[in-house]
Amino acid sequence: MLALGIDIGGTNARAAVVEVATGRLLASAKEAWTDRTPENVVSVVQALVSKVTAGHELTGVAAGVGFAGMLRGDVVVNAPNLGWRDVDFGGPLSAALGRRVRLVNDLSAAAWGELKAGAARGASDSFTVFVGTGVGSAIINDDVLLSGATGVAGEFGHTKVLADGGRLCGCGEHGCLEAYMGGAKLTEWMAESGIAGTPADLERLALEGATPAKGLYDFAVGHLALAIANQVTVLNPAVLVLGGGVLLRCPGIIKRVTTVVMTRASVTSRSGLRIALAELGDDSGLVGAALLGR
Amino acid sequence: MLALGIDIGGTNARAAVVEVATGRLLASAKEAWTDRTPENVVSVVQALVSKVTAGHELTGVAAGVGFAGMLRGDVVVNAPNLGWRDVDFGGPLSAALGRRVRLVNDLSAAAWGELKAGAARGASDSFTVFVGTGVGSAIINDDVLLSGATGVAGEFGHTKVLADGGRLCGCGEHGCLEAYMGGAKLTEWMAESGIAGTPADLERLALEGATPAKGLYDFAVGHLALAIANQVTVLNPAVLVLGGGVLLRCPGIIKRVTTVVMTRASVTSRSGLRIALAELGDDSGLVGAALLGR
Repeated sequence: MLALGIDIGGTNARAAVVEVATGRLLASAKEAWTDRTPENVVSVVQALVSKVTAGHELTGVAAGVGFAGMLRGDVVVNAPNLGWRDVDFGGPLSAALGRRVRLVNDLSAAAWGELKAGAARGASDSFTVFVGTGVGSAIINDDVLLSGATGVAGEFGHTKVLADGGRLCGCGEHGCLEAYMGGAKLTEWMAESGIAGTPADLERLALEGATPAKGLYDFAVGHLALAIANQVTVLNPAVLVLGGGVLLRCPGIIKRVTTVVMTRASVTSRSGLRIALAELGDDSGLVGAALLGR
Repeated sequence: MLALGIDIGGTNARAAVVEVATGRLLASAKEAWTDRTPENVVSVVQALVSKVTAGHELTGVAAGVGFAGMLRGDVVVNAPNLGWRDVDFGGPLSAALGRRVRLVNDLSAAAWGELKAGAARGASDSFTVFVGTGVGSAIINDDVLLSGATGVAGEFGHTKVLADGGRLCGCGEHGCLEAYMGGAKLTEWMAESGIAGTPADLERLALEGATPAKGLYDFAVGHLALAIANQVTVLNPAVLVLGGGVLLRCPGIIKRVTTVVMTRASVTSRSGLRIALAELGDDSGLVGAALLGR
């Protein structure tokens, strides 16, 4: 059986035909845009779908769409990277593709892909944390994605590490975990502190004991690790999936998170817990969207 | 339509016939035991159920059982107050009552009662925090109780307030929120610090600015409030329900929690959030168990 997945980022879209049983991509294509209006994005996606579906039998198959933004049903409430607010995207896209579409948050799609075809395969309950440019998470309980009352559950990056104040986050608030640990903000903080390079460079310096690198690293990673341990306690997942560019390039962070989770999560939640690195890389969202769309 | 609820604590049991539409108790009874063996508890419950069901038509109606302990299906994995470990309680109870039974954690039952007939009525998504002797929580997403992979989701009281060490908790670990904020442990901590009385006395002293009361209070309440705000961010509930003996007797804690949630939870999760005090008192678990049992 085949499924159709679409992944819409800030600068480009991907589409793929996915084999449901395995999560394997049978055909995929990618295209960037300069004109980021909803009309143009719809037509870019339409062309991609025509390309990947050629030669595959996908009549009547709904498309799953992973979208980097805040959604409410078919409507994109806010997509900062595209500059969209309150755009009915699902309706026009469905009309253009001649099939039903299901929009889901990109991180939820990625978590679903990892659950069904990646690091958490075989489980029904996962907590997935991605640390890349930003920090995000998705919660799956008993094979259901937790959406929350208004569809914004999983905003783990905007939990606060301090009771008051703290560094300014991209969301406009102060003291968010993402304001310290998200790649974009961490790099800013490093620059302000006279530390050149990437988070991986910070890790190398910190593990050598260099100041001020060690201070920044211990603060950011310590809060990330404790916050993840506490979510494991509250959510009781079978698998904790760790992914995203920053995490996957910083083995020291993975190690610290693992140690803290296995000592500071509650005994009952950590016994039997599996901690796994995301396996599908850039394809997780595409695969997950396809499988969710069916 | 009628439902049958049972609430089993450490020293007594209650049973009630509940009107499904309103959550109202039509008949209820309570009995304490000195012999806490499973066999005796079954027979106490059997007698209570005979008493409350007399004159009501409950043929074929399953019983919902709220239980103060860790459960796996019909088995009580651990009930410290009863001294039970790995006891098949559901099987014998079902045989004795001549009806199906469904065992649920007492806090989940209470949260369900508040959702269907109390403070969160009308909502489908709630995060319920009880601060009494201990600290517990339950998460409901889209009318489903979050159970977690091994049935221990919601152990909010055992999230850690510190990366290392901290006060000893009843669970055997150090630094749990419950080790500071749970009524039993908070009272111990007060006594060690030379402060007599209850958490309500601590609140009065702290709000007058007395030392060391203010230090203890600010530490415990500050961590409770931030931890709740962060769960609101991650879970995106429609209603945050606050209950339990300590919270309901300490208006200052309610006020602090409300302020911190409305300033430190993410903007998207706190807009539209309703914060409500538990309304059903000691009946919440009984009502919730009855409604879950159906």
